[in-house]
Amino acid sequence: MKLREIGEFGLIGRISSRVVDGAGVRIGIGDDAAAVEPTPGRWLLVTSDMLLEGVHFDLAYTDPYRLGRKSLAVNLSDVAAMGGEPRHFLLSLAVPPGITVEFIDRFTEGMLSLAGEHGVTLVGGDTCRSRSGLVISVTLHGEQEPEFVVRRSGARPGDRVFVTGTIGDSALGLELLRRGERQGWAVDRHLDPTPRVRAGILLGRAGVPSAMIDVSDGLAADLGHILELSGVGARLDSGLIPRSPWFREHAHDVAPDPALLALTGGEDYELLFTVPAGRCGEVAHILAGSGVAAVEIGEITAGDKLVVVGADGQEAVVSQGGYNHFCDGQ
Amino acid sequence: MKLREIGEFGLIGRISSRVVDGAGVRIGIGDDAAAVEPTPGRWLLVTSDMLLEGVHFDLAYTDPYRLGRKSLAVNLSDVAAMGGEPRHFLLSLAVPPGITVEFIDRFTEGMLSLAGEHGVTLVGGDTCRSRSGLVISVTLHGEQEPEFVVRRSGARPGDRVFVTGTIGDSALGLELLRRGERQGWAVDRHLDPTPRVRAGILLGRAGVPSAMIDVSDGLAADLGHILELSGVGARLDSGLIPRSPWFREHAHDVAPDPALLALTGGEDYELLFTVPAGRCGEVAHILAGSGVAAVEIGEITAGDKLVVVGADGQEAVVSQGGYNHFCDGQ
Repeated sequence: MKLREIGEFGLIGRISSRVVDGAGVRIGIGDDAAAVEPTPGRWLLVTSDMLLEGVHFDLAYTDPYRLGRKSLAVNLSDVAAMGGEPRHFLLSLAVPPGITVEFIDRFTEGMLSLAGEHGVTLVGGDTCRSRSGLVISVTLHGEQEPEFVVRRSGARPGDRVFVTGTIGDSALGLELLRRGERQGWAVDRHLDPTPRVRAGILLGRAGVPSAMIDVSDGLAADLGHILELSGVGARLDSGLIPRSPWFREHAHDVAPDPALLALTGGEDYELLFTVPAGRCGEVAHILAGSGVAAVEIGEITAGDKLVVVGADGQEAVVSQGGYNHFCDGQ
Repeated sequence: MKLREIGEFGLIGRISSRVVDGAGVRIGIGDDAAAVEPTPGRWLLVTSDMLLEGVHFDLAYTDPYRLGRKSLAVNLSDVAAMGGEPRHFLLSLAVPPGITVEFIDRFTEGMLSLAGEHGVTLVGGDTCRSRSGLVISVTLHGEQEPEFVVRRSGARPGDRVFVTGTIGDSALGLELLRRGERQGWAVDRHLDPTPRVRAGILLGRAGVPSAMIDVSDGLAADLGHILELSGVGARLDSGLIPRSPWFREHAHDVAPDPALLALTGGEDYELLFTVPAGRCGEVAHILAGSGVAAVEIGEITAGDKLVVVGADGQEAVVSQGGYNHFCDGQ
């Protein structure tokens, strides 16, 4: 069915009919603004991510269900990186003529499935037509007591660098998708990443990380953000960067330098954090119930350089410029 | 200068350097999420609007400064329609290759000029490139004590219908812009609308409106939203709908039926609200310091129909379907 047959208000009704009531939501979808009741004594954490067809996703290899999940996941990951508990979100959609009602239904189902896993509620947003591709904009709210919020700016020389899960799978998955592959571990990791929400909350509430960020631009670039805002450098051991068995087996098929892919490929949505040396022993215990482990991959240093020690023992200084969203592909 | 010369982080730095500190903002632009401190005892009001080039605006006749103002204004208007006090906002921008740094600078200046007028702070957002047109997504937060928040659903038979300012200017301005006109009252009203923030707060805190909405889809369509959610009908006197002297003089040049244009043209961003009959006398006094007046244009009725009485005394039942964002122009 074409969207024009149900119209904008039909679409909003179709989405809102699937939304379940959420704690603290006083006015949900359907008024000029939503109203939510903040928890007394907590800060409100707010993040937005916009995903554009042809830039962030390709409908040739993304199904709507997983696109819905990922659109929310990237925001959940940002709140997780602050140590926050996600609460509610807004969804704005600009929809081109070719998109069907069934597509939007599946997209909504996917998004709300992930929302349900994390107890977050859709409270509002905007819908309009697009003359070019599909545009998805999500704003997510989280909460946390001020003393448990983790920033990017607290890393100090001597702190150890940790990262959760495995790194490089998403970049490998994207490359495989471009080559026609449609399934497998890496493809799943790219299309349906797992935001480390529980891990972020547990780490924040334990007061252990001195700085934290999620790996979206790439391990080197995101560590670069911590270094810049903390006024420090770092020394990473490339061989310690955690790679999945799948990555170890397949990365060399598509990447001339798998270690570089792990260092620069983005969208893993793992947590990258720094810990004072004396508290490193607590990390494994803290994360025990989170569904993910973290490993130590390096150390914060004085200065401002990111040095990576390769498998051959050679050191390289890595650019901290990060992924430049305006240069890529234009 | 082209955006690729400064990159994504250069752009973010350029925008954030213009942002002044705001009350209650604990972490601003530059971390994974922003952190704000809600005012105890208040509800948080949240609204999002997305504006797309070629759908909501045309760069052939919109300058970046006023585009920046309008992108925030449409959100301020939503918070105003709840009786809320606007506090902070997020801006997500998808920027096509042809947009210059100077364009973004002027856009930011315009947006922040309106933000300054209302004491709201830019706290975060997202930037990326676009392969088609410019996409602007703004999420605005407001606050209000729960008892002063005004919903769409409280209109009761016998209540009177009021609207602020004048109606129809924006639709007239858009039509004039399409015909090559570039200045004048109506054009200004379309390109740089004035959200009725102070009026909304004053009305809400006086506890006078039983329902309120802003006029974005058109007077008839937006009143239709109130009627639907309140489960009532209304009877409007077309001759009472306030029109500017400019509209009275020029509307007949471009519209075969100026009264219809006033009834259905959108984007006036005036406040449309209902008031119990016994409290109508308070409205003028409440709005005295707001910079805008409101006039009575009709009455809420039992049933579910919107009846409009024309200049000739004839009655017409108006469709409440509203502007369908997926049918227009496709």
